[in-house]
Amino acid sequence: MLGELRMHELAGYKGRVLDLIKTAGANIGDIVKLTRDGKSVEGLLMPRTVGRNENHVVLKLGTGYNVGVRVDESTRIEVVGTGARPALSKPPRPASKGLPKVTIFSTGGTIASRVDYRTGAVEPALTAEDLYSFVPELASEADVETKVLCNLFSENFTARNWKEIAEAVRDEIRSGVSGVVVAQGTDTLGYSASALSFALPSTPIPVVLVGAQRSSDRPSSDAATNLIGAVSVAARAPFAGVFVVMHEWMSDDTLLVHKGTKVRKCHTSRRDAFKSISATPMARFHIETRKLEMLEAHYSARGSSEIVCKPNFDDRAALVKFYPGLDPGVIDWYVAKGYRGLILEGTGLGHVSAACFPSLARAVERGLFVGMTSQCLWGRVDMNVYSTGIDLQKIGVHPMEDMLPETALIKLMWVLGQTEDTARIAEMMRTNLAGEIGPRRPEGGEDGEAH
Amino acid sequence: MLGELRMHELAGYKGRVLDLIKTAGANIGDIVKLTRDGKSVEGLLMPRTVGRNENHVVLKLGTGYNVGVRVDESTRIEVVGTGARPALSKPPRPASKGLPKVTIFSTGGTIASRVDYRTGAVEPALTAEDLYSFVPELASEADVETKVLCNLFSENFTARNWKEIAEAVRDEIRSGVSGVVVAQGTDTLGYSASALSFALPSTPIPVVLVGAQRSSDRPSSDAATNLIGAVSVAARAPFAGVFVVMHEWMSDDTLLVHKGTKVRKCHTSRRDAFKSISATPMARFHIETRKLEMLEAHYSARGSSEIVCKPNFDDRAALVKFYPGLDPGVIDWYVAKGYRGLILEGTGLGHVSAACFPSLARAVERGLFVGMTSQCLWGRVDMNVYSTGIDLQKIGVHPMEDMLPETALIKLMWVLGQTEDTARIAEMMRTNLAGEIGPRRPEGGEDGEAH
Repeated sequence: MLGELRMHELAGYKGRVLDLIKTAGANIGDIVKLTRDGKSVEGLLMPRTVGRNENHVVLKLGTGYNVGVRVDESTRIEVVGTGARPALSKPPRPASKGLPKVTIFSTGGTIASRVDYRTGAVEPALTAEDLYSFVPELASEADVETKVLCNLFSENFTARNWKEIAEAVRDEIRSGVSGVVVAQGTDTLGYSASALSFALPSTPIPVVLVGAQRSSDRPSSDAATNLIGAVSVAARAPFAGVFVVMHEWMSDDTLLVHKGTKVRKCHTSRRDAFKSISATPMARFHIETRKLEMLEAHYSARGSSEIVCKPNFDDRAALVKFYPGLDPGVIDWYVAKGYRGLILEGTGLGHVSAACFPSLARAVERGLFVGMTSQCLWGRVDMNVYSTGIDLQKIGVHPMEDMLPETALIKLMWVLGQTEDTARIAEMMRTNLAGEIGPRRPEGGEDGEAH
Repeated sequence: MLGELRMHELAGYKGRVLDLIKTAGANIGDIVKLTRDGKSVEGLLMPRTVGRNENHVVLKLGTGYNVGVRVDESTRIEVVGTGARPALSKPPRPASKGLPKVTIFSTGGTIASRVDYRTGAVEPALTAEDLYSFVPELASEADVETKVLCNLFSENFTARNWKEIAEAVRDEIRSGVSGVVVAQGTDTLGYSASALSFALPSTPIPVVLVGAQRSSDRPSSDAATNLIGAVSVAARAPFAGVFVVMHEWMSDDTLLVHKGTKVRKCHTSRRDAFKSISATPMARFHIETRKLEMLEAHYSARGSSEIVCKPNFDDRAALVKFYPGLDPGVIDWYVAKGYRGLILEGTGLGHVSAACFPSLARAVERGLFVGMTSQCLWGRVDMNVYSTGIDLQKIGVHPMEDMLPETALIKLMWVLGQTEDTARIAEMMRTNLAGEIGPRRPEGGEDGEAH
């Protein structure tokens, strides 16, 4: 297995449970049998988290899954064998001097989670150091440094977190690393990738966001392969910029390197949840050979730019998803609350109902920027085809081209953090700043790639 | 071309423009050359809409596109040849007696649109009769009757329209037709398909929704093939229920028959924009052979059920798409406005930020139903994996399984239209009523199909 076992890992066990384990002469890594009320369960004795409900023993079952087993007065523990030793302790740090320096920032999420055996739920628990100890292969990819920035489920991220991450990445780049990896929860990984793409408009190295769809103590975890790919890309890729590295398919063969403004989580649970939308991924990473296959010919070359960090966001921007019967009052509510801009997630080529027009007109009159994206997600809005689009443009709603709704929202938060000038806001929103607006296809052609 | 030409089609032309055409001796279908200020343009003289700016002549160019050309005092028109005769008049109705009866309801949208040559934009203009005259091949598929229900861009649909369509479909089924086709704009076609799936919980025949991504007077229009497929499926398919028939790929080879609660528009402009999400389409229709290839073995057989129509919706239900930093005040706003339910479009397995918890708790306390879907779109929410999901369930938020956010919203509007009992609302929302909740995959498997 991955690391050396140390006896102090029994430290997670306390009180009566620890007594029972000691009485049985069991050690972490032994195969033990727990019997209670005539029923028994067998598994590898695992270390456990301190400070939780003390009456549970953690066993790794033959299926590879870990379970928490409640222990009481009547439970008997006996050692029935010695298993493969679990690897939750820190391995001696392998020599990786001379390799490119890569910093992994840990922010929380599944990639930095373990199962809470009390509730059965996954909770963010691992530090960046732990990540490293889980995947010692990282040492062959780079001279890795790990730093904890925060420990949050990514649904709790706000613009403040993006600012903090952007500034930490900037400082790390100034210190001379070859690449930076940001490990976070997958739920809002796409939003963060957009945020860093705008907040770091120029970078000399790859900044790679990575997550995992299955927690690292699950047998089906994608945490290790994703981390290896992310670190390898950060250390050696020929391109610079902000990217997301995640599984291409369900197998562990290949990962994709997605551009930060064009990627979206498109499945609740699969490893290949992240898709480039209306864009070609930058590259494919082959896990076995550690080879990077370029899919895009054009990129900003590593080392060709200085680091520029503009980390300010103004979160007085909202995303409103349209649907038939949407109450236009919600638009008025955002205006009254002092919001400075709205991104509409309209239908088709960029439409909302005529019932929304008066509220949108009031929003524009009050100086809000209003941008139109499509809930189709794939393709490009075109507000010159139907009279609805033409009317909306007359009101002052701006077409956001093929920008993802989420990307347009984050971009607006960032643009509002850069300037107060409404003309300048509109100009920046309509200009491709970080790959968020793709090239137009020839007239009459079927726009966009297969999906 | 498709139909016979009649001279009265010059009727769209008025005043000076009509004088110029008459002076030139030009007729609809002639190739004419318009010269003004030394510049000239050549094309097939087309009929035009009455009641618009009168100073335009409509020409079909060699490229196949129609353009409006402004005509003034100094414009000269000359006839330079005779082209293929355009087909905007009604053909003599072909004999289709003895074929299954199918009713096409027209509600507006691109499939029933032509380009407004004044603004260059597409506007709903054709009647169901016109649809039929555009696609005379329909006469070989069924004994087609066409009826106009309304003439709206589908972004302007509300629950009132779904009720009206459901009742019209019910009446038509009672009159003994073999199938019903509803032609509408693609923008909210998925929402309408959901609405009819719930409002018609039992039907003896197929009810087929269809649209077009390119208007029927464009050379690249998908209107004709989609209509042929929809009518053929309505007339002859072995299954009953509510479906969407649209292009499978960009070519005109095959269409897919999607189940009404599992389909979504996933591209702004491509013909193959409609995708079955986390579900297999019911069947594939081969345009050339008119053959229906079944993709699903299980279905409700044609003729096995009576028509049941429950057309009431309560639109006091809202969809709130979550994003990092979402202002929880918007939830309170809906509660204060007297809404009876909310569908959250959360992240990943079904999460929103902890900042939303107090507002959600207040909503539940006030008796609102709150359901959780995922903005991933593909896959299934699972609120037992992370502590966020467990906490949300404790608050009273219900997981909506693999329901699309849009489908969950429409279902909630419909359920609220059926009962006032909050326990019954929750029970109905969590029960599969119309195929909106798919079967669970085995534990540990990678849930969901490729996309």
